[in-house]
Amino acid sequence: MTLWGGRFSGKLDPQAWALNASLGFDRRLALQDVRGSLAWAQALEKAGVLIQAESMQICTGLETIQGEFEHQEFTYKESDEDIHTAVERRLGELIGPAAGKLHTGRSRNDQVATDLRLWLLDSILNLDLALLGLQGVLVERAEADLNILLPGYTHLQRAQPILLGHWWLSHFWPLQRDRERLQQLRGRTASLPLGSGALAGTTFPVDRQALAAELGFSQPSANSLDAVSDRDFVAEFLFCAALAGSHLSKLSEQVVLFSSAEFGFFELSDAFSTGSSLMPQKKNPDIFELARSKAGTLLGYLTGLMTTLKGLPSAYDKDLQEDKVPVFAAYDTLMAILPVLAAALQTMTVHPERMRAAIDPGMLATDLADYLVQKGLPFRQAHVLAGQAVQMAGKLGKPLDTLSLPEFQSLSALINTDVYSVFDPQQSVARRNVPGGTALEAVKMQLQDAKRKIQNV
Amino acid sequence: MTLWGGRFSGKLDPQAWALNASLGFDRRLALQDVRGSLAWAQALEKAGVLIQAESMQICTGLETIQGEFEHQEFTYKESDEDIHTAVERRLGELIGPAAGKLHTGRSRNDQVATDLRLWLLDSILNLDLALLGLQGVLVERAEADLNILLPGYTHLQRAQPILLGHWWLSHFWPLQRDRERLQQLRGRTASLPLGSGALAGTTFPVDRQALAAELGFSQPSANSLDAVSDRDFVAEFLFCAALAGSHLSKLSEQVVLFSSAEFGFFELSDAFSTGSSLMPQKKNPDIFELARSKAGTLLGYLTGLMTTLKGLPSAYDKDLQEDKVPVFAAYDTLMAILPVLAAALQTMTVHPERMRAAIDPGMLATDLADYLVQKGLPFRQAHVLAGQAVQMAGKLGKPLDTLSLPEFQSLSALINTDVYSVFDPQQSVARRNVPGGTALEAVKMQLQDAKRKIQNV
Amino acid sequence: MTLWGGRFSGKLDPQAWALNASLGFDRRLALQDVRGSLAWAQALEKAGVLIQAESMQICTGLETIQGEFEHQEFTYKESDEDIHTAVERRLGELIGPAAGKLHTGRSRNDQVATDLRLWLLDSILNLDLALLGLQGVLVERAEADLNILLPGYTHLQRAQPILLGHWWLSHFWPLQRDRERLQQLRGRTASLPLGSGALAGTTFPVDRQALAAELGFSQPSANSLDAVSDRDFVAEFLFCAALAGSHLSKLSEQVVLFSSAEFGFFELSDAFSTGSSLMPQKKNPDIFELARSKAGTLLGYLTGLMTTLKGLPSAYDKDLQEDKVPVFAAYDTLMAILPVLAAALQTMTVHPERMRAAIDPGMLATDLADYLVQKGLPFRQAHVLAGQAVQMAGKLGKPLDTLSLPEFQSLSALINTDVYSVFDPQQSVARRNVPGGTALEAVKMQLQDAKRKIQNV
Amino acid sequence: MTLWGGRFSGKLDPQAWALNASLGFDRRLALQDVRGSLAWAQALEKAGVLIQAESMQICTGLETIQGEFEHQEFTYKESDEDIHTAVERRLGELIGPAAGKLHTGRSRNDQVATDLRLWLLDSILNLDLALLGLQGVLVERAEADLNILLPGYTHLQRAQPILLGHWWLSHFWPLQRDRERLQQLRGRTASLPLGSGALAGTTFPVDRQALAAELGFSQPSANSLDAVSDRDFVAEFLFCAALAGSHLSKLSEQVVLFSSAEFGFFELSDAFSTGSSLMPQKKNPDIFELARSKAGTLLGYLTGLMTTLKGLPSAYDKDLQEDKVPVFAAYDTLMAILPVLAAALQTMTVHPERMRAAIDPGMLATDLADYLVQKGLPFRQAHVLAGQAVQMAGKLGKPLDTLSLPEFQSLSALINTDVYSVFDPQQSVARRNVPGGTALEAVKMQLQDAKRKIQNV
Repeated sequence: MTLWGGRFSGKLDPQAWALNASLGFDRRLALQDVRGSLAWAQALEKAGVLIQAESMQICTGLETIQGEFEHQEFTYKESDEDIHTAVERRLGELIGPAAGKLHTGRSRNDQVATDLRLWLLDSILNLDLALLGLQGVLVERAEADLNILLPGYTHLQRAQPILLGHWWLSHFWPLQRDRERLQQLRGRTASLPLGSGALAGTTFPVDRQALAAELGFSQPSANSLDAVSDRDFVAEFLFCAALAGSHLSKLSEQVVLFSSAEFGFFELSDAFSTGSSLMPQKKNPDIFELARSKAGTLLGYLTGLMTTLKGLPSAYDKDLQEDKVPVFAAYDTLMAILPVLAAALQTMTVHPERMRAAIDPGMLATDLADYLVQKGLPFRQAHVLAGQAVQMAGKLGKPLDTLSLPEFQSLSALINTDVYSVFDPQQSVARRNVPGGTALEAVKMQLQDAKRKIQNV
Repeated sequence: MTLWGGRFSGKLDPQAWALNASLGFDRRLALQDVRGSLAWAQALEKAGVLIQAESMQICTGLETIQGEFEHQEFTYKESDEDIHTAVERRLGELIGPAAGKLHTGRSRNDQVATDLRLWLLDSILNLDLALLGLQGVLVERAEADLNILLPGYTHLQRAQPILLGHWWLSHFWPLQRDRERLQQLRGRTASLPLGSGALAGTTFPVDRQALAAELGFSQPSANSLDAVSDRDFVAEFLFCAALAGSHLSKLSEQVVLFSSAEFGFFELSDAFSTGSSLMPQKKNPDIFELARSKAGTLLGYLTGLMTTLKGLPSAYDKDLQEDKVPVFAAYDTLMAILPVLAAALQTMTVHPERMRAAIDPGMLATDLADYLVQKGLPFRQAHVLAGQAVQMAGKLGKPLDTLSLPEFQSLSALINTDVYSVFDPQQSVARRNVPGGTALEAVKMQLQDAKRKIQNV
Repeated sequence: MTLWGGRFSGKLDPQAWALNASLGFDRRLALQDVRGSLAWAQALEKAGVLIQAESMQICTGLETIQGEFEHQEFTYKESDEDIHTAVERRLGELIGPAAGKLHTGRSRNDQVATDLRLWLLDSILNLDLALLGLQGVLVERAEADLNILLPGYTHLQRAQPILLGHWWLSHFWPLQRDRERLQQLRGRTASLPLGSGALAGTTFPVDRQALAAELGFSQPSANSLDAVSDRDFVAEFLFCAALAGSHLSKLSEQVVLFSSAEFGFFELSDAFSTGSSLMPQKKNPDIFELARSKAGTLLGYLTGLMTTLKGLPSAYDKDLQEDKVPVFAAYDTLMAILPVLAAALQTMTVHPERMRAAIDPGMLATDLADYLVQKGLPFRQAHVLAGQAVQMAGKLGKPLDTLSLPEFQSLSALINTDVYSVFDPQQSVARRNVPGGTALEAVKMQLQDAKRKIQNV
Repeated sequence: MTLWGGRFSGKLDPQAWALNASLGFDRRLALQDVRGSLAWAQALEKAGVLIQAESMQICTGLETIQGEFEHQEFTYKESDEDIHTAVERRLGELIGPAAGKLHTGRSRNDQVATDLRLWLLDSILNLDLALLGLQGVLVERAEADLNILLPGYTHLQRAQPILLGHWWLSHFWPLQRDRERLQQLRGRTASLPLGSGALAGTTFPVDRQALAAELGFSQPSANSLDAVSDRDFVAEFLFCAALAGSHLSKLSEQVVLFSSAEFGFFELSDAFSTGSSLMPQKKNPDIFELARSKAGTLLGYLTGLMTTLKGLPSAYDKDLQEDKVPVFAAYDTLMAILPVLAAALQTMTVHPERMRAAIDPGMLATDLADYLVQKGLPFRQAHVLAGQAVQMAGKLGKPLDTLSLPEFQSLSALINTDVYSVFDPQQSVARRNVPGGTALEAVKMQLQDAKRKIQNV
């Protein structure tokens, strides 16, 4: 069944039908489609287009269909072109010709845009919960591992000692931004296309404001041409998903690194690692590699859709049908990764002794420079001197903190016996006591902030 | 000059230097770099790291440099690795060794992130004005062309008559969303990295809250590791730019179409069209084609950066240096297109008679179906009957509105002489009188809304 | 069942299992997996690892499995991690412990790379046939519509008259390049990874050269580390698919344009167009819009995979599992579009009278300039004069070819009565008689070339 | 100066001019433009359009211009719209009105396509040399480091011992595929557009075959509409560049990893590493990080162009002007990275002792399984037993190769004292003696193959 055809004498070619039909993916909008139709039927009644009896009949039929969807009892037919057609076809089977009144003043153009927005309004909430779940684990781990020392890296070179609690929280804030972006997108998504007809607005005096409120939107769309073609909310969702994916790829990369034998900081639980079909000794961080790889796939969804949108000529073009597959896929991808990452991080073992052992005295060279600054040297000179100390230690083949006092003093007379206190990483960390710094006190405050972000949800 | 090197015995290879140096593009951050350094010097003074005399000396030097940048009198040296190095080198020339105190407690990692955020905070405001400029022209044109009829299209097929004022405004709202997104991004950009050091926070008791306020940020960043590596604001800006580009590509595509001989709705002014080196008669809409094509280029910037960000291993990796070229290029692209499009649209001639002539009676078939609905027929049947009327007219080789009454009645006895009133496009438009619809009254209200969006800026 | 686990005490978490398992998509490699295993079993026998009885037992079992796949009688189990595991599990059910000998000296790393290459070697041939099918229709149409005049466009402005046969063939050659690219990619795909083990090569003296020949590869891979991680062939396939998609998007855009009421050159058959749920008169080119939109989706697959590949750290990383979904999706997309486009073009009606009517005399301005060149004027001046003639005609409100002789001569004394012969579009076309030009003679030769390209396949 | 304008009464708006003008980037095609014009002038003479004196005058003028470009003495004017205009303007200054005859029968559409193809034909050769340069270093290093043992990784977990020579060569072959792809692209690029005019072919009897030969093309293009719009060669070049970038990103990632303190396998020379403005001890692999990041940027160029190409409507649209910036940028990017990487790898120190130390006995577990296979156990069981041995060693807290014989025999009675010989990594490597395997003998043969690939260039 199609919702058109009066003017056509031939039938659509079967292969063209297969290409054109969207039921394979838009069936996912079944419940949203029914919800939108229920509201539309009531709006038509209020507008005097349907009498109460018709509206009630239609709504009863739609509720039956809703139940069928909820209980997976709805039977699709080969001939259903899309979810809208399937619902209207079934409504006709249930209530007869009155079903033909439901589509009055409405087009699939405004209908599908409404369905997809409804779906996204719900789905953003689910995704927010999944992100929150991972944030919760990061906070838990930050609290549990708060005061463990580990080397911090830049350029993958050992840079300065940090606290593991600080490291965990460094992965919390990107997710917080993701949630903020999604929340703002949700606001933009809550603009109701229904009532825009095919492109020019409906001819029936429907109260679009009330319709918006009924369906949980904040307002009706401002321009019907824009309303049926606007896929900004799809593009923006795919961007948010891709950027979240990027954050997860960075977290994953670091976990993969820290789980290698060479770093040895982390050890995945058996429940979240896999083996090799050939090499019996292997314990692989597949979960994190997959999470890393999905950042690519998610970016592909975004790029694909935005390319599709480029230069479209009309108010509605069929090209827009290409919007649903990526949006569902992006959502499913994140919903599959997030809880697994959360559980994997929760059950991971950390090896503080390996982390501590990886903090070599050279990492305190900045502290040596700062020490010289405290003694009155301009930082730039202090930096040079500290660099020379590193070089001297390297040439002598001994750790920086074992240079003798004369050796130190050969570089600068400002250096005294108190220099050796510089090389305690615990002290080094404690000195970075500014908001956002790695000092224990600062991280504790950061942790409180983080907790506040996830508590009032 | 480099800001490092104490531990190195060799010099950087010249080709490696060329690859590594970023002065070619980060010089664009010159004023932001100075601004950040001025605030940093004062913060160091308040923190007791500099005495007042030093701070004043440094600030006076920086102001001189600021003046040199503003008057294009700053001389770069071959040996300047990046803008930060150039400024510090010049400061040393101006004030001597005290210059070496400026970098105390700071790293280029937090410095460059601060500079780029400062730049973006300014640039978003400029871009907002440019978008506003185009919106203003769209509103002007909507007002001037308010009541002109033209065919509305879906699938590039004639669909329903609309008002030209409505069409102009359909391109207003996407830009409004662009501005809203940029505004929200601006909020997220206003988180200050300075004070995060290389990765772990600064060891000097700098008041980051005050520093943020001083530089126009809303708060200091929450986590130093995140602060130096976070490029979300760059990715989000590139996304906003790419989506704005997508909107402009759609507008441009429609202008290109409507300027073709076949449509003939629009005629570009000579000042905004170009000719052919071979074909003397050509008048080409190059401007709009270029705007359309830039949607691709802008998407490329986004894709490129997000690919670069995938799976980075550390708090700061040099990969992040790749962030600046696309962000500048995206900004410049939009700033080049927007005013030209605005002026081109402003000076464009419209041909109402061509538009009116393109409204064929078949476009009123929905109105015929609605007429039958008014007569009591379910829409689905009404749609079939109207489709049959279209087919009948086609077979008889005459326009839909010239079917005789008996011909109409052969399809449905519900049709009466009043059917002919259906085929007035002015009436058709007037019937779509819901918020967001194309009726004159509705478009007038929409126009008021649009004006409000651009007035309080 | 997994092919690993000896060292693990816990079981994989169910959600992690779901994320990790690839059977949902790699089952598509079932027949290739069996084919590879058959060859491997024989190679193991030749290498003395299996005795003949074992090899025969294994091969008989594999052939049974092959039959089960071919007749859709193979039963997957929840516990099958991937297609390789499923096959080995089933083999064990069929032949007992000897099945455990099949994986000797092999890893899933070299196995899956082999399977996917086998699949692509076949699939490129299928895709070539589908491209050939569309090329065949283009050639047919070019022959049938050979001598029909239509306006050629640049910048979507009428430029010069061309032959419809020439236009059809302009869409033939891009597909020819697609086929050439795919053919060359096929050569690169035919490098056999099997025998590379997990990463370092197999320890058993397998004859890889013979194995390659047996499986239809041209040679064994040169380096085992590269062999298990190389996904160039996947990226290159996705690029070829995306570029083919780009070609189809351009063809589709032009068909959509030419099928609009304003152009009116083409009319789709009912079997390849669709209607509107709201507007009874609509006849939409959905098929071509979908083809156009898929260019975006196909590009997304390429971008996604290439982002996933960026910066992978090892010989084999699990990230590579993300390769299969896009490669299958890209193939299916093209295989769905190509035959539909072919059939739609084949059944399309063309309207030569509309095309002829759209050739306005201004399109002959280049010919007027060429006429002046023939009279001895430098082209640059001739171009200016012809432009002035166009302007004069515009001001006088009459077609270029109706300027009076005195009017023409007011521009140049070189113009004589023979100027009017310039304005015959048929003559204009005939004058472009160089190889690749639009003259009938040249197009006929081009058609012969095109036919040769598709005949010897 | 523009090459058009006869029909225009107004002048182009200055901002529109700036957007439209391409001289900023297409000046890079200066020499190609002159070369193409020289050939065109001669072709026009042979076709009888120019007399010999005119042709000679034009060619002499063009040669003067060529010299000016070569010696950077050419003066551009503000008013030059693009490189073609600049050359024709200058020609006019040099030889007077005869310059106006050069553009006879030619359009900028076929001219610029010819110029860009000429540029690419040259540039591919340069890029090939740069790739060859890096291949040469890889071969050198492979030879020098041939027999050094290092751990091979999959999933960034230690997998099996390999030879460093083998590892170096694993980065050779991807570049070989890049060169092969570029070579094939070069073949496709060598199709000459010149003679296609604006879209329909030239009206003058130019010998396109001879013209192609003269300019180093293999044949004239087959269809003029296709010839002026075909940018496949650009897209394909950007793909080749992006894939090469992907290869370099993988190599770079591994070098960054191996240069970390935790791996400690590689040490960059001072000439190819950089320091930190804050941390005196740092020695950063910036060069490799930049190379890794450029993979993103290069992919962005590809995505951008392909999005621009999507759905273009005409034979030539101005959108195509967007092709040049990315193609130049992609080329420059690779040409900047390749020699630096080559030199950095050449001057890098390797630490065999660190590599050897990282080979733990667990990496020989596959060899233990293979040992059991040799004893007659099916591999699947052998794999399980070896896994249990790994687990037992883990529980006992000792290396796998220090399990006592009774401990081994508790797992399988097949194990005997000869089991200890399994754990020699040198032997393990030697056992992988198949083509492409890591055995010394196999790597030596591979090295010979690699040398052959780079010798006959």
